[in-house]
Amino acid sequence: MANISVLGLGAMGQALAARFLQQGHSVTLWNRTAGKAGFLVAKGAREISSAADAIASSDVAVICLLDYTASNSVLDSAASVLAGRAVVNLTNGTPAQARATAERLESLGTAYLDGGIMATPPMIGGEHALILYSGSKATFEAHVGTLEALGAATYLGADAGLASLHDLALLSGMYGLFAGFFHATALVGSEGIGASAFLKLLGPWMTAMMGELPGYAEKIDTGRHGVNVASNLAMQTAALENILTATREQGVATDLLDPMLDLFRKRDGAGHGNEDISGVLELIRSRNSAVS
Amino acid sequence: MANISVLGLGAMGQALAARFLQQGHSVTLWNRTAGKAGFLVAKGAREISSAADAIASSDVAVICLLDYTASNSVLDSAASVLAGRAVVNLTNGTPAQARATAERLESLGTAYLDGGIMATPPMIGGEHALILYSGSKATFEAHVGTLEALGAATYLGADAGLASLHDLALLSGMYGLFAGFFHATALVGSEGIGASAFLKLLGPWMTAMMGELPGYAEKIDTGRHGVNVASNLAMQTAALENILTATREQGVATDLLDPMLDLFRKRDGAGHGNEDISGVLELIRSRNSAVS
Repeated sequence: MANISVLGLGAMGQALAARFLQQGHSVTLWNRTAGKAGFLVAKGAREISSAADAIASSDVAVICLLDYTASNSVLDSAASVLAGRAVVNLTNGTPAQARATAERLESLGTAYLDGGIMATPPMIGGEHALILYSGSKATFEAHVGTLEALGAATYLGADAGLASLHDLALLSGMYGLFAGFFHATALVGSEGIGASAFLKLLGPWMTAMMGELPGYAEKIDTGRHGVNVASNLAMQTAALENILTATREQGVATDLLDPMLDLFRKRDGAGHGNEDISGVLELIRSRNSAVS
Repeated sequence: MANISVLGLGAMGQALAARFLQQGHSVTLWNRTAGKAGFLVAKGAREISSAADAIASSDVAVICLLDYTASNSVLDSAASVLAGRAVVNLTNGTPAQARATAERLESLGTAYLDGGIMATPPMIGGEHALILYSGSKATFEAHVGTLEALGAATYLGADAGLASLHDLALLSGMYGLFAGFFHATALVGSEGIGASAFLKLLGPWMTAMMGELPGYAEKIDTGRHGVNVASNLAMQTAALENILTATREQGVATDLLDPMLDLFRKRDGAGHGNEDISGVLELIRSRNSAVS
């Protein structure tokens, strides 16, 4: 069993600490304002008022604060004890923020592992929780047994920004899925069809359409968007125009899908109408992309 | 075995006719410009130059043209033979177009079934093809055995517009899914991570996130978007802001998800921050919606 400090006791920090306690670890808690840890102290955790003391008392410090401004402030306040310590930062942020913190802590002699939690607090410790890690491989390997109790642990590489990058990308995919669900549901709702009833048709359909993604991915990776005779970009531009026309006719707002049609039209207008729709990626990707 | 006429021999019309021939039906073909039916004639189909004669020679006429302007024109040219006939129109259009055609044909004494094909031509007759129907129930019941050879046949109701409505809604959901995939893939691509490699993480994640939809659907149907302490709208607005900030930092365009953030902010600003994100549906749905 390990000595673990948990810094930050919002809903997620509390869920992490509760899971560590359940696994039999020795848990030290710190929060900017005290008194949020009552039920965890009752389960055997120790709450202390100095973040530096919390970090100094533990084998590994797990940080889960509101944002990097907060986590950097806490790490600065504990700078004197950080040499030789291991820090796992599960605070939400951007790849740039993760890299800046990694650079600062490595200069202090601290092993830094950054993480992205792909779960809500009630999911922690359950079979559907996934946590992505990047940064110090030694820290990941030393503590993976402990970390796996929180959720499936995936290590993505030494660049501390990779966990955040993948975290944000997965969430962006999810928000696209939800946007599609909202548009579709509003469209059938305009005729009084309920969302739950419609989902019986939409769910299997969306699952089937997931089957299109490997083909698009291959085209994106090769940069060759092929010739698609069955359903090319020009045909799908006409189809999406028809969908948005009908959406307006039904009195439903087209906001969520307007940009997709704009991209389709732009790519079609540039002479790629006989290719697959995967080519629209060329219009949004970074010019610095290594894949092009 | 039935006498079927197929009007319209684009890629989809050809796939439908080929499947009917494969099932042993007697197939009569018509296309605006002749000569597209060579391989079908070689398999036993009969091509004729009058749409009216094609319809008059068959038990059921299956129409699959470019748009309703084309299908209405063909039906007008055959008006003299339409009384007592059954027409199944699989042309892409809107609910309003389907209803207008249904009204016109019913006034001529024609049984009208409208349909939406949820498949590309190569998928016709395969296990993943789905075709939605609405309009004349008697026509559906009389020919469902024949129609099922094309793909799973689902009847949605007597209102001829329902097949198109569901067709367009399912496709809109799909385009949201694809938009999420494109954004996510462009984001990781900015660091040289390939789409196929990333899809190994994204695929299971998207499948898991599909599990959120029944909960949202229930909230949409009841109009009560609850109190979500684990991941409410305010939290998700901050998360999506963070995703789009990071996306810009990576040099990737945020076009596809900007409207989702706009809707989140608008709903959050209206005092619904502690509710679930399903409430954004209230901002896009029709004011005439029966569910509200």
